[in-house]
Amino acid sequence: MSILVTGADGYIGWPTALRIADRTEQRVVLVDNGARREWVDSIGSTSALPVADPTERIDTAEDVHGLHNLSYVEGDLTEKSFVDRLLEVHEPATIVHTAAQPSAPYSQINGERANYTQHNNMQATRNLLWGLEEHDLTDTHFVETTTTGVYGAPEFPIPEGGAVMENDGERDEVPFPAMAGSWYHLTKSHDAANMRLAHKQFDIPISDVRTAITYGTETAETAADPRLATRFDFDYYFGVVAHRFAAQAVAEYPMTVYGKGEQRKPFIALEDAVEGLARLALIDPDDRPDDLTVYNQVTRAISIVEMAETIADVSAEYDLDVAVEHFENPRDEDETHKMEIENEKYAELIDGQSTTFEEGAREILGTLVEYEETITAHEDRFLPGVLTDGE
Amino acid sequence: MSILVTGADGYIGWPTALRIADRTEQRVVLVDNGARREWVDSIGSTSALPVADPTERIDTAEDVHGLHNLSYVEGDLTEKSFVDRLLEVHEPATIVHTAAQPSAPYSQINGERANYTQHNNMQATRNLLWGLEEHDLTDTHFVETTTTGVYGAPEFPIPEGGAVMENDGERDEVPFPAMAGSWYHLTKSHDAANMRLAHKQFDIPISDVRTAITYGTETAETAADPRLATRFDFDYYFGVVAHRFAAQAVAEYPMTVYGKGEQRKPFIALEDAVEGLARLALIDPDDRPDDLTVYNQVTRAISIVEMAETIADVSAEYDLDVAVEHFENPRDEDETHKMEIENEKYAELIDGQSTTFEEGAREILGTLVEYEETITAHEDRFLPGVLTDGE
Repeated sequence: MSILVTGADGYIGWPTALRIADRTEQRVVLVDNGARREWVDSIGSTSALPVADPTERIDTAEDVHGLHNLSYVEGDLTEKSFVDRLLEVHEPATIVHTAAQPSAPYSQINGERANYTQHNNMQATRNLLWGLEEHDLTDTHFVETTTTGVYGAPEFPIPEGGAVMENDGERDEVPFPAMAGSWYHLTKSHDAANMRLAHKQFDIPISDVRTAITYGTETAETAADPRLATRFDFDYYFGVVAHRFAAQAVAEYPMTVYGKGEQRKPFIALEDAVEGLARLALIDPDDRPDDLTVYNQVTRAISIVEMAETIADVSAEYDLDVAVEHFENPRDEDETHKMEIENEKYAELIDGQSTTFEEGAREILGTLVEYEETITAHEDRFLPGVLTDGE
Repeated sequence: MSILVTGADGYIGWPTALRIADRTEQRVVLVDNGARREWVDSIGSTSALPVADPTERIDTAEDVHGLHNLSYVEGDLTEKSFVDRLLEVHEPATIVHTAAQPSAPYSQINGERANYTQHNNMQATRNLLWGLEEHDLTDTHFVETTTTGVYGAPEFPIPEGGAVMENDGERDEVPFPAMAGSWYHLTKSHDAANMRLAHKQFDIPISDVRTAITYGTETAETAADPRLATRFDFDYYFGVVAHRFAAQAVAEYPMTVYGKGEQRKPFIALEDAVEGLARLALIDPDDRPDDLTVYNQVTRAISIVEMAETIADVSAEYDLDVAVEHFENPRDEDETHKMEIENEKYAELIDGQSTTFEEGAREILGTLVEYEETITAHEDRFLPGVLTDGE
């Protein structure tokens, strides 16, 4: 019996694996192919916090937290034979699948990158789902981090799952439609539909965790030693908006709000994201619904401009001189859309959020000021740029 | 200026290309990689009607119909460089994209086939859509045959496109959700969502033609010469239910209805399917909505058992001794679901259906009796079997 964490070299994957390992005696197998490091490198950027390699991280976790149950397997989940071997050897009781090319702008660079992103993300998920069926592991709890980005911007509150659809006066409960706005985000709509099918055909219990924009530099476990730090991207492609703004603040570069910035986006602190995934990974099979459950992994919806102003306010505590500037929005979106998003199931799972956005901004800026040099050296990467790897 | 027909070696693609070529002076470029012949071969079956190779078909079309505007390009649409060359050389004003691995049971054989089907179908579509953007062809009308199978079996009448979704008392019009029941059918849900995104991002005018179960052996053009015949599959994997039943009737093999067979499925005659695609391909750009339009390419919903009984009745005219037998349903579906499906837009496009199901059954049986030997030699292929190519 083991727990697989895929994408365990990633921003959410690594701290999630650490927390799970800290709460169980089961073996926690980290799976990654190091692709995130390559993607960020290919667009000429780097993580603000230096990230140790997987082996050093595991050694440090043993030294600092006394964890003896972590191990690392390097491999590419799009290769079916690798996934088959992984499942055969480790027979996981749970898979926390966080591996994906996660950047919308990266998936939009050109047709090659769109293909790469959709194929990479979908084939990894298919290999895992079919692998569970083909290796008689259909009791394994499959937990995937998808994205709240699958929901688009409807005029009704976004449910945790499907809703009622009506035509010609007749009604039925249906899954949520694919309304995502990028080639990346659609990989997660497609995965969500593929997971529903796998659940229906193979009876695999599935938790589809729709992850909001996740912010934060650390969790209780990673904060214990710099060699346990998770990555922090701040570039146009891999830095989520909250992180890019925080890095811009540290570099005293104006925070670039595209358009009015009044549209609300869903957010969650890294600590709250990791806690939910760890609890799902460790849930007793008897307490787990043998079902497909959708969680909106979100604690609140904040407008982009409110977020920028909060970061600007907190920046003053660090004597940073920060401006909020508005630029023309290159994206086709309603800049005043007031997203409402339901999160009762997720809030119950984590017993309420631990961190407000202001506290999160304080934590991020407190950490980032130490890495001001790295950020400043890459401040041209706040904006779209070309690939540097000749691809 | 040209018209590309992808999958032009296929059951619908070939007669569609012929009809388009017969109605225009524009060059009609047939694109295929011959994969359908290989798939059917790999499961040990064959087309009931012998199918000439593309070159012989084109030569015959010139001899018989005087068509000088057909040409054939062999290649794989999942290769981006091939698609890029195709678009560069031919600069199509219209693409009728019928290429796909179309079999649900084939996509369900194992994880390898599921991967193959999803990757094959989705990457071909992505390469075409991104190709139009990257080669400045965003005025090109992109017509894809998807499937009514994307709709699942909701309790409301199935719209031509999206419908109203409601949550917490608030409502919005949204696209139809992915409720398909096979790894193949989901490729078309995923394509539909990718097409919506391409329309939104690149402004490509798109017709998403959701094709029902298509039946028939011929069209006005293919009937003129046996070398112009389109393929007719009757095996478990590639024979749609109407064709498998007709072939079973010709072999005097009992027609195998799984379960009660009271569930209604959407149908359309080949003639009516080809007519709609040809009209869409040749529509004047000024009369065409610069939009994404969903058509339900269907003329009626018929229950499986009604279809079997109609075929049995018509069989008597050919002195065939045919029984309808009920077997346990291996699929998880509501056997009494009374599908209602809207088709106003498609009916208007083709000015009403040309063929009833009974007439269609008569045409099919009239043709098939000539090929009774081929069918009888492969009657073990009416049921699921193993791959014969060692894969």
